[in-house]
Amino acid sequence: MTDVTRRKLFAGASLAVTGALPAQAAAPPAGRQAPSVYRYKVGDLEVTALYDGVWYRPIDEKFIRHADCAEVQKAMSDAFMPQERLATPFTTILVNTGKKLILLDTGTGGQIAATAGSFGENLAAAGIDPKAVDTIVISHFHPDHINGIKSKDNALIFPNAEIMVPQAEWAFWTDDANMRAAPEGLKIAFHNVRRIFADIAKDLTRYEGGREVAPGVETVAAGGHTPGHTVFALQSGKEALMVLSDTTQHPALFARHPDWQPQFDIDGPAAVATRRKLLDRASADRMLVTGYHFPFPACGHIVRHGNGYEHVPLLWNIAV
Amino acid sequence: MTDVTRRKLFAGASLAVTGALPAQAAAPPAGRQAPSVYRYKVGDLEVTALYDGVWYRPIDEKFIRHADCAEVQKAMSDAFMPQERLATPFTTILVNTGKKLILLDTGTGGQIAATAGSFGENLAAAGIDPKAVDTIVISHFHPDHINGIKSKDNALIFPNAEIMVPQAEWAFWTDDANMRAAPEGLKIAFHNVRRIFADIAKDLTRYEGGREVAPGVETVAAGGHTPGHTVFALQSGKEALMVLSDTTQHPALFARHPDWQPQFDIDGPAAVATRRKLLDRASADRMLVTGYHFPFPACGHIVRHGNGYEHVPLLWNIAV
Repeated sequence: MTDVTRRKLFAGASLAVTGALPAQAAAPPAGRQAPSVYRYKVGDLEVTALYDGVWYRPIDEKFIRHADCAEVQKAMSDAFMPQERLATPFTTILVNTGKKLILLDTGTGGQIAATAGSFGENLAAAGIDPKAVDTIVISHFHPDHINGIKSKDNALIFPNAEIMVPQAEWAFWTDDANMRAAPEGLKIAFHNVRRIFADIAKDLTRYEGGREVAPGVETVAAGGHTPGHTVFALQSGKEALMVLSDTTQHPALFARHPDWQPQFDIDGPAAVATRRKLLDRASADRMLVTGYHFPFPACGHIVRHGNGYEHVPLLWNIAV
Repeated sequence: MTDVTRRKLFAGASLAVTGALPAQAAAPPAGRQAPSVYRYKVGDLEVTALYDGVWYRPIDEKFIRHADCAEVQKAMSDAFMPQERLATPFTTILVNTGKKLILLDTGTGGQIAATAGSFGENLAAAGIDPKAVDTIVISHFHPDHINGIKSKDNALIFPNAEIMVPQAEWAFWTDDANMRAAPEGLKIAFHNVRRIFADIAKDLTRYEGGREVAPGVETVAAGGHTPGHTVFALQSGKEALMVLSDTTQHPALFARHPDWQPQFDIDGPAAVATRRKLLDRASADRMLVTGYHFPFPACGHIVRHGNGYEHVPLLWNIAV
């Protein structure tokens, strides 16, 4: 009789050791998420979406100005999201132009929340050495976009990269009078800007909107969320991608309700105007878009829906 | 002067060799998709969604019975899908119960289309040895669900797995009178069933609906798509997952338009009744669902939308 299967052997081994353990699956539960990396092409540009995790923001009446808390929670429930806190995901975009590796924002650097900071792991899973990144283009100076420039102990994570920041953003956040005038909650962000940039200020490249930072990658001023907030227009051949940055945070809330003014939009009315303008353009032209706080892989299209918009996620593809 | 950067060195090296080559990105484009694996928990059960790729079905007037071709193409356009052919993705579910590794359907085995067959790679990326799979539970006998049982050269891919098949499905497809009576297009599927199962028929376990194949994993008869088509109900603690199998193929078409009768539903009216019943249940109870032909990671919720339903994809999470 040679019908001793692997499973019987395994069960036998367990019994020999413990006398009573039930048979276990040969493969133990992984207990952790798989690498979260997604690639797609925009013409000749290869885009890699790299997931950095999620931050849970408590929902209270201050969260969205002038919006009814119950209405906000209904929008979250409609999207099957927990209602007591907003799951805000982070996805960073790496663009390979064939000549340059360009990173658009850097993730949280693991310095925002225990549930975020997987960018580095996912970059490694994508086969990219941080030393190979040629250029970092920052959209704006909120911590979840700039903290990944440096490790917790202040070392540069991408030692060979030119770091490009919006001139208007630089002017706003480095102005000491602005810091003194800021509400307490925002002061933290001012101090954080100083921590990240103080010792590398002279090496930064400050850019204006409308600049082509690499062939096919253009910066577009899109203020409101912050004064120098910037989005990116990628174009190659007949294909295009609009990188919305933070003009529209979680689409289940702010695409569907573009007039809502979240507390983190520094100039609420200007942010609404910018949001409506970009979403209108994206939906009218059926443009491919990506949003920093859209659910991973954070890419898809925008359609009009009532008085707002809806995000239609990209269909995950086997090919790039 | 020691300010020779890596980039300048690289450009210099290029010039030295070729005299005129532009500088290249240090990391060449990957040119291929990243591993497509997503994990989530249903109570104590760990579910791994494994992507197998996509099949493009040409769209013609025969594709959906009684539906207007232009209306079908509008639904595809609304979902930002190409209109001349339907991208049908495949995602297989692996369930780790803590005691058993259970695979629900097997993917295409790379035997359907050049654009499908990534299941094996993704299983490897998930760290699972095919030898570790304890049980395969088949939903129905269409090639994209059973071909992954075997390699092209007829070898068992999961040599240690018990293979469980629906009794009603077995009865239908192994009946020679049914094969003779079948339209030409369907005869291929009958022959394929014989190729896959002929030499392993005695080793198969045939199951009825309502059977618990492992603690927390129950089979539910859901005929129409095929006579013995089966869905799965996973339950652990207070959490549940409905595995829709093929009761609803691509949600952009068949959740939104549940009354459409695709050619591949063998009994169109029965399939519509089953589809409506399950989608109604899923939306009323706000159940988590997964569908074999939903876009990867193929998991989310169902909401009512007009006379049909809409799929709301799960928010990709950093944790399992």
